[in-house]
Amino acid sequence: MDFSRRAMLGAMGGLVAGGALASLSGNSMAAPAMSEGKNGHFAQMGGEFSWEPKKLVAAECAPVAYDGYWYKGFGCGYGVFYSIVGTMAEKYGAPYNTFPFSMMEMFKGGVADWGTVCGALAGAAAAFFCFFPRKQANPMVSELFRWYEKTAFPVYNPGDAAQGVKGELPTSVSRSVLCHVSVSTWCHKTGKAANSKERSERCGRITADVSIKAIEILNAKIDAGKEWKGALAKQESVAGCTSCHGKGQASDMQKGNMDCTPCHSGSSAVADKFHNHP
Amino acid sequence: MDFSRRAMLGAMGGLVAGGALASLSGNSMAAPAMSEGKNGHFAQMGGEFSWEPKKLVAAECAPVAYDGYWYKGFGCGYGVFYSIVGTMAEKYGAPYNTFPFSMMEMFKGGVADWGTVCGALAGAAAAFFCFFPRKQANPMVSELFRWYEKTAFPVYNPGDAAQGVKGELPTSVSRSVLCHVSVSTWCHKTGKAANSKERSERCGRITADVSIKAIEILNAKIDAGKEWKGALAKQESVAGCTSCHGKGQASDMQKGNMDCTPCHSGSSAVADKFHNHP
Repeated sequence: MDFSRRAMLGAMGGLVAGGALASLSGNSMAAPAMSEGKNGHFAQMGGEFSWEPKKLVAAECAPVAYDGYWYKGFGCGYGVFYSIVGTMAEKYGAPYNTFPFSMMEMFKGGVADWGTVCGALAGAAAAFFCFFPRKQANPMVSELFRWYEKTAFPVYNPGDAAQGVKGELPTSVSRSVLCHVSVSTWCHKTGKAANSKERSERCGRITADVSIKAIEILNAKIDAGKEWKGALAKQESVAGCTSCHGKGQASDMQKGNMDCTPCHSGSSAVADKFHNHP
Repeated sequence: MDFSRRAMLGAMGGLVAGGALASLSGNSMAAPAMSEGKNGHFAQMGGEFSWEPKKLVAAECAPVAYDGYWYKGFGCGYGVFYSIVGTMAEKYGAPYNTFPFSMMEMFKGGVADWGTVCGALAGAAAAFFCFFPRKQANPMVSELFRWYEKTAFPVYNPGDAAQGVKGELPTSVSRSVLCHVSVSTWCHKTGKAANSKERSERCGRITADVSIKAIEILNAKIDAGKEWKGALAKQESVAGCTSCHGKGQASDMQKGNMDCTPCHSGSSAVADKFHNHP
């Protein structure tokens, strides 16, 4: 990325020209209008969802995602997000290069080590929402998340560029988009420690896997526009459970699209582990 | 927020001067140096975690968080994040006002309606990570998340400014930072539908509640600096379970800091709901 004085001024000038100033010329296609906000709040430079998505080459971005995972330990969400929006910043400058990329470290360990959503997935969702509002981005996220639930990870192998552990790694299907479930399922199946180098390497490779799939979805979305639809249907459990617990049904009391079975299966994994350890 | 041509040019000039250019003068306190990146990637405008956090007045920001929840339906994560970083943008301009705020719609419904992490919490975490790397931000997130697990929500009442439902709302303690668990627990206890106006209003008020607590934490962090520590101890279940399943222990196989009990309790909530509905 060229961060010379000349490039910076050009990039920032481009942002201004592409945002508020050019909007005065009425060229709203090339330059989205400034959002108006409400009651003195919520105005947004360049307008909401005004960043133009660019097609990327997944094979070029995957090694960047993997390296981003290890870069200063910024982790999975940073790796995926940088491999998408950061690559656009490297190729096209503003507005992409104005993003404070390091904040994506927030997703490491499923948000600040809390084990909630897989950070690689969240980094991809964050990239989608730079470009698309929820009506268009949510189906992209669903396609990515459903694919993740069913895939045996890791797939990507960095070869000699591995920064944790070289060679093949054992795989598992997590059935869950939650970091905690994904990691523990893999550790339980493989016997590897959650705090081992192998587990770190696994998550680094998943960072590349998610980047590749997210870019496949993004490129297809750019080609198809509003007509784009994902290929993966709602999971059997979600379709079944929401037939009673979904919107407008007899017991409308749940939110979410996660596969229900990992946590609502009555399996030994969800038995009373604290007071009555099996 | 002043988005006139003059203000825009001033703000963007300020960003450039505060980033790459001023760093050439060696004034690294006022203007963080540009990050160097690695192998042609990961350079960041203004440097990593270079945005300066500003103290805020929670009572002023809470109504903005609540309104942000409803603004174009952008939701909880947007509301909390805008109430913090957006307020700094309104007061101080760049670099805060360069953020593409609408992307925070990603957190609505626990990331694109998937019910993972509570979006209000994720919006606060995103704000913390604009300013602090994980060693400093993670304890801030843990304080916020632990407080959330134990609090009966909603607390905030917008009075006549309510945009969903006016008046008091019933409360519940979610014991979980997951959107899905938080919403379903409230619905189960109160009998309200997940897709009701009351549930939307509940989450709008929680957006204000989380903003208030996040700003309390942020202000205390700014005052105390690296010495800051949260008041809330690790949950009993997490301390207990990680005594065997934590780092370096006999069965090191879990990641995360979520209270273990909602999902590993053997309760009826985690019985086999799909094949053998209780």
